[in-house]
Amino acid sequence: MKDKLYLMIPGPTPVPPTVMNAMSKPIIGHRSAEFADLIGRVTDKLKKVYQTENEVFVLASSGTGGMEAATANVVNPGDKVLTLNTGKFGERFGEIAAKYGAEVDEVKFQWGYDIDLTVVEEKLKANPDIKAVFATHNETSTGVENDIKGLGELVDQHQAVLIVDAVSSMGGMDVRTDEWKVDIMVSGSQKALMLPPGLAFVSVSPKAWKVIEQNNSPKFYFDLLKAKKSLGKNNTPYTSAVSLYNGLEASLDMILEEGLDNVIKRHKLLAKATRAAVMGLGLELLPAQEYASDTVTAIQCPMAVDVNNLRKTLLEKYNVMVAGGQAELKGKIFRIAHMGYATKTDVLLTIGALEMALNKCGYKADLGAGVREAQLVFLGERD
Amino acid sequence: MKDKLYLMIPGPTPVPPTVMNAMSKPIIGHRSAEFADLIGRVTDKLKKVYQTENEVFVLASSGTGGMEAATANVVNPGDKVLTLNTGKFGERFGEIAAKYGAEVDEVKFQWGYDIDLTVVEEKLKANPDIKAVFATHNETSTGVENDIKGLGELVDQHQAVLIVDAVSSMGGMDVRTDEWKVDIMVSGSQKALMLPPGLAFVSVSPKAWKVIEQNNSPKFYFDLLKAKKSLGKNNTPYTSAVSLYNGLEASLDMILEEGLDNVIKRHKLLAKATRAAVMGLGLELLPAQEYASDTVTAIQCPMAVDVNNLRKTLLEKYNVMVAGGQAELKGKIFRIAHMGYATKTDVLLTIGALEMALNKCGYKADLGAGVREAQLVFLGERD
Repeated sequence: MKDKLYLMIPGPTPVPPTVMNAMSKPIIGHRSAEFADLIGRVTDKLKKVYQTENEVFVLASSGTGGMEAATANVVNPGDKVLTLNTGKFGERFGEIAAKYGAEVDEVKFQWGYDIDLTVVEEKLKANPDIKAVFATHNETSTGVENDIKGLGELVDQHQAVLIVDAVSSMGGMDVRTDEWKVDIMVSGSQKALMLPPGLAFVSVSPKAWKVIEQNNSPKFYFDLLKAKKSLGKNNTPYTSAVSLYNGLEASLDMILEEGLDNVIKRHKLLAKATRAAVMGLGLELLPAQEYASDTVTAIQCPMAVDVNNLRKTLLEKYNVMVAGGQAELKGKIFRIAHMGYATKTDVLLTIGALEMALNKCGYKADLGAGVREAQLVFLGERD
Repeated sequence: MKDKLYLMIPGPTPVPPTVMNAMSKPIIGHRSAEFADLIGRVTDKLKKVYQTENEVFVLASSGTGGMEAATANVVNPGDKVLTLNTGKFGERFGEIAAKYGAEVDEVKFQWGYDIDLTVVEEKLKANPDIKAVFATHNETSTGVENDIKGLGELVDQHQAVLIVDAVSSMGGMDVRTDEWKVDIMVSGSQKALMLPPGLAFVSVSPKAWKVIEQNNSPKFYFDLLKAKKSLGKNNTPYTSAVSLYNGLEASLDMILEEGLDNVIKRHKLLAKATRAAVMGLGLELLPAQEYASDTVTAIQCPMAVDVNNLRKTLLEKYNVMVAGGQAELKGKIFRIAHMGYATKTDVLLTIGALEMALNKCGYKADLGAGVREAQLVFLGERD
């Protein structure tokens, strides 16, 4: 059974059959009244998941396109920006801002740690002319959740706009766009939102619009003022990804039917069980538990084990795909995602396979011990 | 039967069930060996449809994103470029180039006419420092096919690179990227390639790479040098639109199984029949027959008829959707597409419905007369 796959990587994630079916609906015109209705409905539902009253735009691009849209519409050449790098995706914001001519002040936190707000506070005080602060809510590369609420409170006292990447948390974790005072919140389709890759989402606050209106960086496809003008008519400036849009409504319906609160609780539980299981096997997490992500768990690979061999064994022997480390974490960690269309059973099967693969790769894992820890969490017998 | 729809607009176009099924395959990781194999196969097949030996890149964006990629990677601020505007999409190239700081020399041809090569020749002679020439192969907004072969011969004698939008011709019409000496050829998924919107394709010649290597305009998501580096490893810099990619292989397989030559002949025949039919009803085409498009037919709306009313009647009474005019052609023309997943029968049903709708909207069309003209073309009884 080579073709059966348990996909436990942090995106793209498995797509539910209901969403697949929705994407298989016959194509309709992207300028039709029917599609305008769909845009209207989807926008309302997306705002609920975003927990925002701001406009939310749907772009036909991957999440990185959304990050570029946020940057290109804000940064003018020479602008001072602060980027908070807690991993590969935080780093990417700095790279994009530099492309647009920003004077980038990047604070790099050791990968595996979260943002230190006292550093941000000092930076903002010392540099009141900072125009934008870029941060990552859930850093996919390290399995770290950053305190965006705390960051929002700090940035709100300054002129700077706060731009946050919530690509791997939106739809799975509690993302309070308005309450946390996030001016531009970026996310993507292929993570907790249970869709194939191909859509990015961008919300924009009134404070951000004022900055965007003064922007003169070159942009066309990602021009948010144009998108705003179109959204007012339930439209998009360029051709919408019609089939993904149909899927988006189906996935948002699934989330809202389960209840956003319940979805968030489910992710919390799966993460807790996964952490308990791997620690039960004597493995160490990359981040501290207090700020470990609820959608992806990053685990330090034991010295005796070759990460690539472990991943290969998991895939070839047990049809389970997990992710390795990226950039400087390559070869050092592996990552198990539990985001989107993910259940308790997915955690159990992954840990069960992991126990076997670890043993095959030179690490003596106590068979069943990790699974048992996860089960105890699910049964409510672990606090 | 409100939900049955005959979609005859120039994109998005109907998606074949085979392609829909391919897009419903379970999601796989975009960094997996299996996906790398898919990228390799799809790239080879795409090159056949492109008729090129150049690299062809698949971007997760709409066609406009492909146009911006072509522009952002070539244009430095202050560069002189020549844009050939034969309609809304030719005009768009000028808008994008201006955003990137180009000194844009736009030649606007009357919409409904094709490019006058003598004008281009003069422009190039008078301005040997022109860095890029932008043109549209098949102008969707006017139903005009431009002579890219002739244009390529002219531009080839100069330093300028030739950038062509073949969004609505690729996969339906004869597009000879290499033979016509097109340096960057842009196309998109949702027209003759029979896919939902969400992918753009961009081919790049060795001459274009030399220019791209000297480029310093801000770009990140659309950075073609990064895409080149990734494609060398059958990879993409950012997350690929996995499900659309699966669909792309299925649609390319359909085209190559039918045979690219046969696909081109089919489109020629459908266009010829459509033109014969509407002229048989006493209507006038927007462009002259010699350069009328093989994928979309633009028709002047009779004075007595309100275009919106005609389109509404076609849709509500007969479930047939055709397009209106865009920008300055709004209210003046309507457009029937016959691209991609389109057959003789689609032409017959559209003309049949059109005859009835015209009568309902105040134009006395001879019932059956247009259908008969199309039938005669199909039976080979019209030259």
